[in-house]
Amino acid sequence: MIKGHGDDAYRYGKKMKANFSSNVYNKVNIEGLKAHLCKCMNEIGSYPEPEPYSLEAKLAIIKDLNSKEVCVTNGATEAIYLIAQAFRGADTAILQPTFSEYADACLIHGHNVSSIFSLPDKKESYLLSEEIQTLWLCNPNNPTGKVYDIDRLQMVIEHNPKVCFIIDQSYEFFTFAKTFSAKEAASFPNLFLLHSMTKRYAIPGLRLGYITGNPALLQRLRNHRMPWSVNQLAIEAGLFFLDNPQEAPINLHAYLEETKRLRSNLKSLGIEVLETQTHFMLASLCKGKASELKDYLAKEHGILIRDASNFEGLDERFFRVATQTPKENDLLVAAISQWIDN
Amino acid sequence: MIKGHGDDAYRYGKKMKANFSSNVYNKVNIEGLKAHLCKCMNEIGSYPEPEPYSLEAKLAIIKDLNSKEVCVTNGATEAIYLIAQAFRGADTAILQPTFSEYADACLIHGHNVSSIFSLPDKKESYLLSEEIQTLWLCNPNNPTGKVYDIDRLQMVIEHNPKVCFIIDQSYEFFTFAKTFSAKEAASFPNLFLLHSMTKRYAIPGLRLGYITGNPALLQRLRNHRMPWSVNQLAIEAGLFFLDNPQEAPINLHAYLEETKRLRSNLKSLGIEVLETQTHFMLASLCKGKASELKDYLAKEHGILIRDASNFEGLDERFFRVATQTPKENDLLVAAISQWIDN
Repeated sequence: MIKGHGDDAYRYGKKMKANFSSNVYNKVNIEGLKAHLCKCMNEIGSYPEPEPYSLEAKLAIIKDLNSKEVCVTNGATEAIYLIAQAFRGADTAILQPTFSEYADACLIHGHNVSSIFSLPDKKESYLLSEEIQTLWLCNPNNPTGKVYDIDRLQMVIEHNPKVCFIIDQSYEFFTFAKTFSAKEAASFPNLFLLHSMTKRYAIPGLRLGYITGNPALLQRLRNHRMPWSVNQLAIEAGLFFLDNPQEAPINLHAYLEETKRLRSNLKSLGIEVLETQTHFMLASLCKGKASELKDYLAKEHGILIRDASNFEGLDERFFRVATQTPKENDLLVAAISQWIDN
Repeated sequence: MIKGHGDDAYRYGKKMKANFSSNVYNKVNIEGLKAHLCKCMNEIGSYPEPEPYSLEAKLAIIKDLNSKEVCVTNGATEAIYLIAQAFRGADTAILQPTFSEYADACLIHGHNVSSIFSLPDKKESYLLSEEIQTLWLCNPNNPTGKVYDIDRLQMVIEHNPKVCFIIDQSYEFFTFAKTFSAKEAASFPNLFLLHSMTKRYAIPGLRLGYITGNPALLQRLRNHRMPWSVNQLAIEAGLFFLDNPQEAPINLHAYLEETKRLRSNLKSLGIEVLETQTHFMLASLCKGKASELKDYLAKEHGILIRDASNFEGLDERFFRVATQTPKENDLLVAAISQWIDN
């Protein structure tokens, strides 16, 4: 769905001073990439490969996969819509609350969509309802910051061989908790793993993601996709980061420590903030609406947050923020404090 | 469909000296654009608008339309797949031979696809078969270079109000023959017009196209599309060309004169070449296969042509070339002459 996402500064018609609204940490140094893209600007004069074979092959080598086990997409978003399309009309469960695009894509492609709010565990013998054909979840989960236990996930996947699992690991590089490797994912006959280079390298303007999984599953997607969906400069960016692994590093330890500090400061304002295992957090106001807070912060302070009230299962009190620099985080806390005081 | 297009130099694992295989005239001067993109490289750090509203609004002003009458897409290819998706399962006719993506997209989205080889005319009272729900054609047509008469098109569109027409005008800037204006298109209740900035400005690596039509038709597409499908640098390129109309001009008169000369020289080798109203032409060998000629030219001369044998209604003799510089065109003619002599 086109509406209701973060990073919507365009609604306010002005440049924001600080942006907490998308889950992209936009302080990553990508000067090396920018210089590289300027150097290969001639490439815009030729068609990209119909499917990004070269980038898929390079990713496969790095992930110890066969190139048939990698499918590069126009952001993780194309991956979501492509899978929804390839499983058109399925009975689909979505582990909520989560990123709204799974439901939107599935509804557009005629799925019968239901929500679940927890995974089965040992007591229930790991079995899902027999009606479910595809199950979608995000790990680490947007907007809660929760990371699902990988052993439990593996048991659920193995005990439900007729269910196709779609696990969106767009935030896998922003947690110390264990998530699936691409190699592990490809060993399951019933698992798509979604990955985001947009998020990892803070290049959401370029749109670059990929899917890993077993070749038979990925072939089903390839049969449904359009050619040239990935822009040549996005492909060049992907190749650049794989060839230059030292580029755009994040000090994850420091970043997650700062996340803890921000959470603690928000809590000290009397706001409930869920525990998070990644770099963003879901908060809920005790009084007032998130939409009002959002408008106030944007208009009065040039600060953008994500009104999270439109996530399934959440209500008007909820908002989400992704940790930025200590200085910006302090600005946010001070501005929210002012709003509460008024 | 991912396979079977032009611009497939990657198959030969080497850089080509001359490329006649796609319908892009890659001698256009885009230095201004390249410099601009380097200047706005910071934009890759933010999400694009979920749908490219700003570019749509600017296009609308230039085309004297309302912004609801313009839908910007990830190349004209996204437009094709989006329309096929929005009309899922339709009874669809395609005016052949033409660009294979119409049929591929419609088949992927469950259409019942048939081919027609001419449009009804006055004698037949302009009526199409009652079963047809969507009709696709390309004007100027790829690969034949033919431009359909616009008055006849208008009569057919008006006489078949229950049929939705999709006219791909990707090559509209490469002909002196009359085609529909975006403004005219939006006045019909049953016509999508497809436009390509990729083709016009020779930037196929960036992927940028748009659809014009009446707001109700376009809303149907918007309900079916994913967010962020158009990369921010593609959007910046579009804005740049609209703000700087003097950039990347083509001397169309000279270019089409050179096209005539190339056609005449190919004919003098004993090759049949269809009359063309645009910058590319469909040729057929009297002896031998186009695929063999293509391999020979690529391997021995570093020249890429389009084997056109996989277009509906054509056979193994057919190939397509788009006019390049006089020097390159002479190289092509000389190389084909050598192949014929052997």
